[in-house]
Amino acid sequence: MARTASLSGFPEWLPQERLVELHVLDTLRKTFELHGFSSIETRAVETVGQLLRKGEIDKEVYGLSRLQDDDEENAKTGKTDPNALALHFDLTVPFARYVVENAGYLAFPFRRYQIQKVWRGERPQEGRAREFTQADIDVVGDGELPFRYDVEIALVIAEALSALPIPDFRLRINNRKLAEGFYRGIGLTDTAGVLRSIDKLEKIGAEKVAGLLKSELGATDEQAGLALQLATIRTEDTSFVEQVRALGVNDELLDEGLNELEQVIEAAIQRAPGKVAADLSIARGLDYYTGTVVETVLVGHEQLGSICSGGRYDALASKGNRKFPGVGLSIGVTRLVSRILSQELATASRSVPTAVLVALNHDDSWSAAQDVAAQLRSRGIATEVAAKAEKFGKQIKFADRRGIPFVWFTDDDGKHQVKDIRSGEQVDADPATWTPSEEDLYVRVVTA
Amino acid sequence: MARTASLSGFPEWLPQERLVELHVLDTLRKTFELHGFSSIETRAVETVGQLLRKGEIDKEVYGLSRLQDDDEENAKTGKTDPNALALHFDLTVPFARYVVENAGYLAFPFRRYQIQKVWRGERPQEGRAREFTQADIDVVGDGELPFRYDVEIALVIAEALSALPIPDFRLRINNRKLAEGFYRGIGLTDTAGVLRSIDKLEKIGAEKVAGLLKSELGATDEQAGLALQLATIRTEDTSFVEQVRALGVNDELLDEGLNELEQVIEAAIQRAPGKVAADLSIARGLDYYTGTVVETVLVGHEQLGSICSGGRYDALASKGNRKFPGVGLSIGVTRLVSRILSQELATASRSVPTAVLVALNHDDSWSAAQDVAAQLRSRGIATEVAAKAEKFGKQIKFADRRGIPFVWFTDDDGKHQVKDIRSGEQVDADPATWTPSEEDLYVRVVTA
Repeated sequence: MARTASLSGFPEWLPQERLVELHVLDTLRKTFELHGFSSIETRAVETVGQLLRKGEIDKEVYGLSRLQDDDEENAKTGKTDPNALALHFDLTVPFARYVVENAGYLAFPFRRYQIQKVWRGERPQEGRAREFTQADIDVVGDGELPFRYDVEIALVIAEALSALPIPDFRLRINNRKLAEGFYRGIGLTDTAGVLRSIDKLEKIGAEKVAGLLKSELGATDEQAGLALQLATIRTEDTSFVEQVRALGVNDELLDEGLNELEQVIEAAIQRAPGKVAADLSIARGLDYYTGTVVETVLVGHEQLGSICSGGRYDALASKGNRKFPGVGLSIGVTRLVSRILSQELATASRSVPTAVLVALNHDDSWSAAQDVAAQLRSRGIATEVAAKAEKFGKQIKFADRRGIPFVWFTDDDGKHQVKDIRSGEQVDADPATWTPSEEDLYVRVVTA
Repeated sequence: MARTASLSGFPEWLPQERLVELHVLDTLRKTFELHGFSSIETRAVETVGQLLRKGEIDKEVYGLSRLQDDDEENAKTGKTDPNALALHFDLTVPFARYVVENAGYLAFPFRRYQIQKVWRGERPQEGRAREFTQADIDVVGDGELPFRYDVEIALVIAEALSALPIPDFRLRINNRKLAEGFYRGIGLTDTAGVLRSIDKLEKIGAEKVAGLLKSELGATDEQAGLALQLATIRTEDTSFVEQVRALGVNDELLDEGLNELEQVIEAAIQRAPGKVAADLSIARGLDYYTGTVVETVLVGHEQLGSICSGGRYDALASKGNRKFPGVGLSIGVTRLVSRILSQELATASRSVPTAVLVALNHDDSWSAAQDVAAQLRSRGIATEVAAKAEKFGKQIKFADRRGIPFVWFTDDDGKHQVKDIRSGEQVDADPATWTPSEEDLYVRVVTA
């Protein structure tokens, strides 16, 4: 849209744009619930200690302090105080805290979806806002979590994304065990360091990544070459296994990772054909992933960045000796909706929920008009009543301006008629039975 | 519930509690949309200047600052800097800003609903959280807004609240013009001051309010007595008009207010009988109300405070000479849901969306089980697939623990059966046609 946010990085939608966003949110919710995911929400606020628990993070966190600070909490708001409050920057860290706190009340494996706003104080740009909505699904186990959930999560997300009014997409999947085993097999043991360098491949290119591997991690030419060769492997089927084998590296963890990734790709070929690819360049910055890792691009919109990311984490949440391994994916709803709107990939069929405006004959026919409206609403037809008995032409213009397709008239003898203001057709109608076509009953979101 | 929030004032719900909240939110949304209200959301963040625009506020505001503050914005985060960011404390002030910013894109009168979290750094107690959800409806006009919308808004809210699993409620309605005109008529011109004192009536009693009126506003005994007499008038019909007239005060604005309030009560008697009362003690703290003011109590839970408040504001939003008068009401969703949960006024019929668990015969029957699940889901039946081929007893126990009512079995010959694990009844079933009863298809929220 031509409009720019009045506060950079904090997008707001017009009502007709919000209808597109609502359609996206409703579609995701429906898919997630059909697959047995429970809704939860966590508070917007975590302690700084909780947010930084996994050590240094690359997200810009918004801290909170009360403007009218007048009591003992004053002392707590120091920026480095771990008890100070801050806005969450994702939904995974709060979810891990929620699971640990409520473990006694949850049935494991616990499947949940969570659709909420998150905040990051980053420099705003296309596809990157400071306030945005994420839609996450995760399955978390108590002690252990079968690998099968890695496969399932990918399939659920493929189904959810397929139901949205967006261009074709591709889940690009890798496996941390595969990468870590491979690096270990060639003698590079600082996995996190290698991953950080490989993560920059798309941005800075192979040559510079090789330079980083050598200068920062002490890799030889051969090691850097092999690490880069691994990262170039991308297949839409399971042939990546052979290609990795051909590099001649042997490692137990590598085998495990290859086997896991093969299972995911195999299932996806069958159940979500064309939507998933093995991509061994996918690294994911965050430390907590331990197996499957996923990023997702919109085909033809790759420069938008990943619209859905996540993976397996075996150690994000724990309570004493009790571990809660999980696997999950997070859809960047605001990023998707911004793109749908800016490129007009889909639009709402009208700008208001209202299907019918009941016009007023006289100013004192308001109550009778409300009776008509109540009858229509009782059958699920969204209806407004005019507030003033202006000339019918003016009342019709009002409906037209608001995007309402039908205007209802009741004359002084109690005879009802309804006018489709798009075609001009006006017919007799009974408020107890008249219904607009399925197409006009609700707002629909239609792809361009 | 027995659980307490891990961070005081920031409640979080368990999945089965969240289902109750979702039911409340869905019901409100449905009612609002049936009445033609459009959904919008505004950013969580406003500038401090915007939040404090109406002068001194009694809400505790949370200010924001970036933890990793490293650029020129540093200078902006001073607490008194009007450009500093803070979390919104209601949805009315952000909505007013939204209307002014987007006036060129909106069709007036603009009807919107807005369901979002708000934050107030107040001392938490029962019914008062630091993070909570509000559900607002407002109608805003360009230049003028017919009084009829005051009547309509009250009726829509009465309908919305009636659809919720809550005890009986009463909208208590007053009118600022009535109060202001009356006070002026008896010679008290500091309306805001009188309202502030009257607002304390329920808390500190008539005697102390009289004391305040005399000591702080210089009222005579007679003036204080009349102001208090006005505040004692409560009627379920329009007889308040006579009662006010009997006090012998004459003022034009008083007449206007009496007439407006009479219209609201008259319509409510007809369209929402028993749900609305005229209550001339209702003052509402906020300065921006100019006509109708509303508070709402749950009958038998009056000490919970108002669960829905608002009113008419003629001057909240303006753009140069252009004024945007509005009328709106705000439901305290978290306050309502907390009460529903703590008193078990309603519960979810099960704790997960899932209706069916497809059991596994062997570990390699997962894909066939997914086929069954996909068939059920395509007909709207929420279905999960077991992750491991444990003994059937264990798989049934798993369903039971998660609250899933049905378990699906497919034997090696491809014969399907479905078991209702509550009754133990097991019958042949076809995944292409079998459907649970309407009662079991979706989670229902049932009142106690």
